[in-house]
Amino acid sequence: MTLKIGVIGTGAIGREHIKRITQTLAGGKIVAVTDVNQESAKQAVEQFNLDATVYPDDKSLVAADNVDAVFVTSWGPAHEASVLETIAAGKYVFCEKPLATTAEGCLRIVEAEKKHGKRLVQVGFMRRYDSSYVQLKEVIENKEIGEPLMIRAAHRNPTVDENYTTDMAAVDTLVHEIDALHWLIDDDYKSVQVTFPRKTKHALPHLQDPQIFNIETMNGVAISVEVFVNCQYGYDIQCEVIGEEGIAKLPEVPSVVMRKGGNLSAGILQDWKKRFMDAYDKELQDFMDSIKETGEPNGPTAWDGYIAAVTTDACVKAQQSGEKEAIELQEKPALYKKSITELQTQ
Amino acid sequence: MTLKIGVIGTGAIGREHIKRITQTLAGGKIVAVTDVNQESAKQAVEQFNLDATVYPDDKSLVAADNVDAVFVTSWGPAHEASVLETIAAGKYVFCEKPLATTAEGCLRIVEAEKKHGKRLVQVGFMRRYDSSYVQLKEVIENKEIGEPLMIRAAHRNPTVDENYTTDMAAVDTLVHEIDALHWLIDDDYKSVQVTFPRKTKHALPHLQDPQIFNIETMNGVAISVEVFVNCQYGYDIQCEVIGEEGIAKLPEVPSVVMRKGGNLSAGILQDWKKRFMDAYDKELQDFMDSIKETGEPNGPTAWDGYIAAVTTDACVKAQQSGEKEAIELQEKPALYKKSITELQTQ
Amino acid sequence: MTLKIGVIGTGAIGREHIKRITQTLAGGKIVAVTDVNQESAKQAVEQFNLDATVYPDDKSLVAADNVDAVFVTSWGPAHEASVLETIAAGKYVFCEKPLATTAEGCLRIVEAEKKHGKRLVQVGFMRRYDSSYVQLKEVIENKEIGEPLMIRAAHRNPTVDENYTTDMAAVDTLVHEIDALHWLIDDDYKSVQVTFPRKTKHALPHLQDPQIFNIETMNGVAISVEVFVNCQYGYDIQCEVIGEEGIAKLPEVPSVVMRKGGNLSAGILQDWKKRFMDAYDKELQDFMDSIKETGEPNGPTAWDGYIAAVTTDACVKAQQSGEKEAIELQEKPALYKKSITELQTQ
Amino acid sequence: MTLKIGVIGTGAIGREHIKRITQTLAGGKIVAVTDVNQESAKQAVEQFNLDATVYPDDKSLVAADNVDAVFVTSWGPAHEASVLETIAAGKYVFCEKPLATTAEGCLRIVEAEKKHGKRLVQVGFMRRYDSSYVQLKEVIENKEIGEPLMIRAAHRNPTVDENYTTDMAAVDTLVHEIDALHWLIDDDYKSVQVTFPRKTKHALPHLQDPQIFNIETMNGVAISVEVFVNCQYGYDIQCEVIGEEGIAKLPEVPSVVMRKGGNLSAGILQDWKKRFMDAYDKELQDFMDSIKETGEPNGPTAWDGYIAAVTTDACVKAQQSGEKEAIELQEKPALYKKSITELQTQ
Ligand SMILES: [Mg+2]
Ligand SMILES: [Mg+2]
Ligand SMILES: [Mg+2]
Ligand SMILES: [Mg+2]
Repeated sequence: MTLKIGVIGTGAIGREHIKRITQTLAGGKIVAVTDVNQESAKQAVEQFNLDATVYPDDKSLVAADNVDAVFVTSWGPAHEASVLETIAAGKYVFCEKPLATTAEGCLRIVEAEKKHGKRLVQVGFMRRYDSSYVQLKEVIENKEIGEPLMIRAAHRNPTVDENYTTDMAAVDTLVHEIDALHWLIDDDYKSVQVTFPRKTKHALPHLQDPQIFNIETMNGVAISVEVFVNCQYGYDIQCEVIGEEGIAKLPEVPSVVMRKGGNLSAGILQDWKKRFMDAYDKELQDFMDSIKETGEPNGPTAWDGYIAAVTTDACVKAQQSGEKEAIELQEKPALYKKSITELQTQ
Repeated sequence: MTLKIGVIGTGAIGREHIKRITQTLAGGKIVAVTDVNQESAKQAVEQFNLDATVYPDDKSLVAADNVDAVFVTSWGPAHEASVLETIAAGKYVFCEKPLATTAEGCLRIVEAEKKHGKRLVQVGFMRRYDSSYVQLKEVIENKEIGEPLMIRAAHRNPTVDENYTTDMAAVDTLVHEIDALHWLIDDDYKSVQVTFPRKTKHALPHLQDPQIFNIETMNGVAISVEVFVNCQYGYDIQCEVIGEEGIAKLPEVPSVVMRKGGNLSAGILQDWKKRFMDAYDKELQDFMDSIKETGEPNGPTAWDGYIAAVTTDACVKAQQSGEKEAIELQEKPALYKKSITELQTQ
Repeated sequence: MTLKIGVIGTGAIGREHIKRITQTLAGGKIVAVTDVNQESAKQAVEQFNLDATVYPDDKSLVAADNVDAVFVTSWGPAHEASVLETIAAGKYVFCEKPLATTAEGCLRIVEAEKKHGKRLVQVGFMRRYDSSYVQLKEVIENKEIGEPLMIRAAHRNPTVDENYTTDMAAVDTLVHEIDALHWLIDDDYKSVQVTFPRKTKHALPHLQDPQIFNIETMNGVAISVEVFVNCQYGYDIQCEVIGEEGIAKLPEVPSVVMRKGGNLSAGILQDWKKRFMDAYDKELQDFMDSIKETGEPNGPTAWDGYIAAVTTDACVKAQQSGEKEAIELQEKPALYKKSITELQTQ
Repeated sequence: MTLKIGVIGTGAIGREHIKRITQTLAGGKIVAVTDVNQESAKQAVEQFNLDATVYPDDKSLVAADNVDAVFVTSWGPAHEASVLETIAAGKYVFCEKPLATTAEGCLRIVEAEKKHGKRLVQVGFMRRYDSSYVQLKEVIENKEIGEPLMIRAAHRNPTVDENYTTDMAAVDTLVHEIDALHWLIDDDYKSVQVTFPRKTKHALPHLQDPQIFNIETMNGVAISVEVFVNCQYGYDIQCEVIGEEGIAKLPEVPSVVMRKGGNLSAGILQDWKKRFMDAYDKELQDFMDSIKETGEPNGPTAWDGYIAAVTTDACVKAQQSGEKEAIELQEKPALYKKSITELQTQ
């Protein structure tokens, strides 16, 4: 059984997913594409030699009879409408972050999904599929470190371009930690405060870099995430969870160990794409597999997209105020209480 | 374009490859299966819900019009005949190790392939697809450690069952290092001598364990491989290349780093299957992709299968004699001089 | 030339220093001891077979003709008086922390020393003599990581006894980081705020554990120190300095690397005394050597003792208020501007 | 109680030991010096401001009434005579390696000591005092890795000068492993075979570098030591013991961990003197302390010096023959059966 997929947005990320489905993963087929730039959509068909129809817009693509599921890989402001369209058609949708550009937009998607009665949406937070994060979550769930008390994390990029602004540290960079960390410890956020340390000389005048986000959870876990996007030395994702009985930490990315020129060393990734390459593959494979096996996608939900939106909003507010800002969620609908898999294994 | 595959041998390894093609990788389809146990072949079709014909024997499967390529995953003594059959039909073949149970058998395959005029055979030495080995090879090829002078390697299993015999340390265990190491340093073997250290109490009376294989290459590189299959603590593959300018070593398999109970620790794999899981996926994906792109498989060749056979023969002889035994190869046919990719990038 | 030493306070730490001078280090001799418990002083003489006079009190010991230098190893509240006494006599004094129990007391010592005109006092902050800290400081001073922007540190003990109170996390535990970190980056503190994460179940009801101290420096460096004194797993001192060009971190304490029982592991110290054993030796050897070579002790000064007092005061206030508390120092007297060694090498 | 020491040989190593006794360690005093170059002896007295007599030769120094113990730090060929002289006088002697330049010479010293009736000699094999080796030995003695089966060791120097010859790899370099390894596993050597791998281009024409020494013990342990004295990258001592239940390995020398320029790295020592600096201090402190406490030195014995001589002889023979050469010891005299400490703790 092959899942027939329509792709809305054939830019860089859209084409990477098309490539995955076509050249790397099993069980999916791209049957439809669209883009606001129709020429781009046609090029994508040609580039990957697809047996796919080019549609004039998301509406017509979603409506196509042979489309089982939709990938929303357009630019952020367009996500909400495409996702709502797909839910209205009762079809599955994998939406890259952000689910919507506002918390209200995310809630509208949540409401639509509730109304539909089962989960159709998966949001593209790929870290949950990274084997190191998965192992870290297992360690925590197995109570190997007891109750989590603190998390120390860092998200570092070697450099950013001139378009990168201070709020993007929250909205585009920290957002991955925002999704990963509440999932990791099965907890909700309560507040956030932002510290601006001495600024690196490598940051442009308009950009505050580095930044420290101190987040408190409902269970009292103190999370500190450093975002440092001009760290020079490489792309580096760190996460350490300090618990009552011990500490668990993501391993370093494996790299050949060298003894040379007076140093014992191992390379650090420069390119962020390589860090989560396998996770990108796995999130899409799991999206397809879980739909076939359980009738629902198994990954990050629309609710997780909503949490990310509310939390990044609070982070941006905290960047501006310098104060501790509350992170307040609506009540969680029953639909999102547990993943299907989790309920089944209980 | 889908590569249509016939599988000869539907035991454990055959089914794993069927699962890969069906559930994990892109671009292949199982269209034919056979097994000396026809019931097993039928079960495999059912288990993976294949749209595939069950053939009574390898001959008929190879001959089937819709079969583009053949996987030989039967027991070792049957490999040679199936591979020769496939070459005779001018079809591609992925053969699990051993290519043949004797050096002479391997040479017959080499001759058949030479006669055919291009490479059709890939042997299932998956380590060449392991990302750590690939990175190690790059380091060496980039001359980052200068000319290789020595290699220290180890192949350790936690335990083996009672059927494991002393010669299997060479034929079934060391064989992976035999293939990987000459590929790694682009060199040929010259001689081997075996040392039997003090025997572990965890080995059964009939088994010498551990063993040390000291291999010399044509360039004078001194290779020492420890094979220790009752090491108790885990499955552990080590490889360190000492060169004129520095040393390069495979990284440890990444695992969550724990601080607990007085120890800083990281788990070691227990299950060998997990170590090269990704490499198994990549070898088959590359087999399919390179055939489509270049008309030849890109992986370990029949000649590599022959090298493995000659070398394991010498290792077994050296186990018995205690002496230094020569490793003597025929002259290398032009067909195997360079991989297509290598020639293209020159 | 032998430095003749009088010891005020012959409890545990006093006897350890007597043992060092007598059995481990070169160039010193214990010639005088006293203790409020005279019996203890006599026992110390006997235990180490000292050729030393027992004095009835600190005054008489300090006044003794053959005493060149004094070790103040009595209980904290007695330190100030003994140090002032020794300065008045124009003799050298090595005083264990705290220099005095109040900032005002420390200032009185600073004033006395200023009046005397050269440095006589060294405070027992031994971390500056730890080889790892020394190497870390060199890396920073050599600008290998550029300007420091952030510090992440942790001070963890496996357990504490029932007498350990929340304020001791600042006064007795954090105080070592307080001294080490401003020395490490050659900066002064500006403010501190304290966070109480979820409390571990292993802490007694009266104790907040763990605690996070967020300290800002005059140069804007954001320091975060975790104090966690019931971490269960061991005694662990972590310090990582994040700079504009890279990151430098204390190495783990070296320990035999084991592969056993499914784990790659190395032991973590349980006993804090072992962590800085060498540093304790070196601080006393340096105290004696620098006096002989330069006429002044070379280690942490009375001014450093004052900084520690002001900072721990602010930390305790911050524990109680939950607010950001200022750390305000008097102007630094010229006497403490640079160490003699530093001035000489300029 | 101060141990009064006479030093025979005031070259580099002699002066380092004089400095240790004078400026670093407790309980010893240099009261006598001599050197074949009398001027050197006088300079040493001046350099360290010693209160010591310069003697015309070793005989007169040994005979001096106020000399309790002698350090033999002259050139190798002179050691035997000075040691025999000191034993004849019934005084203690710390002799740098080699104890004597021939196995026969070592045996003469053993005989003299036997005749004297108690141990007077300690040989300067300092590795037994290195904290990492000590910890490794504890792990082995505690049976944490079960019975040792194999040892993998390496002794690497960045470069050597033109005077370094092939046999020195055994006599001057490997000799430290020879002493350390039999002590580590409490075993005796049986045979040695030497392999010459491909030679590094960084070695001069007259020097074979690297070399591999494969040594078998009486218990069947297979030891492989790589000696590589032009490895370029640093001074590096590796030792890994593979046992029935697990593996134990010397830790890396601790060094600040850097993230910079695309690498996670830690420095490797360049200067061999720094690697065992602490061990040199401890061996002399222990020599003095154990004499005072037990009446005998506690370190490597004359018998250990003999083992080293016999083994290096066999190694040199094996370098020349290419064959497996026997290592044959006389029967061990009762005097050396156990160290005093070991007997006391039994
Ligand atoms: Mg994504
Ligand atoms: Mg294979
Ligand atoms: Mg102290
Ligand atoms: Mg020595």
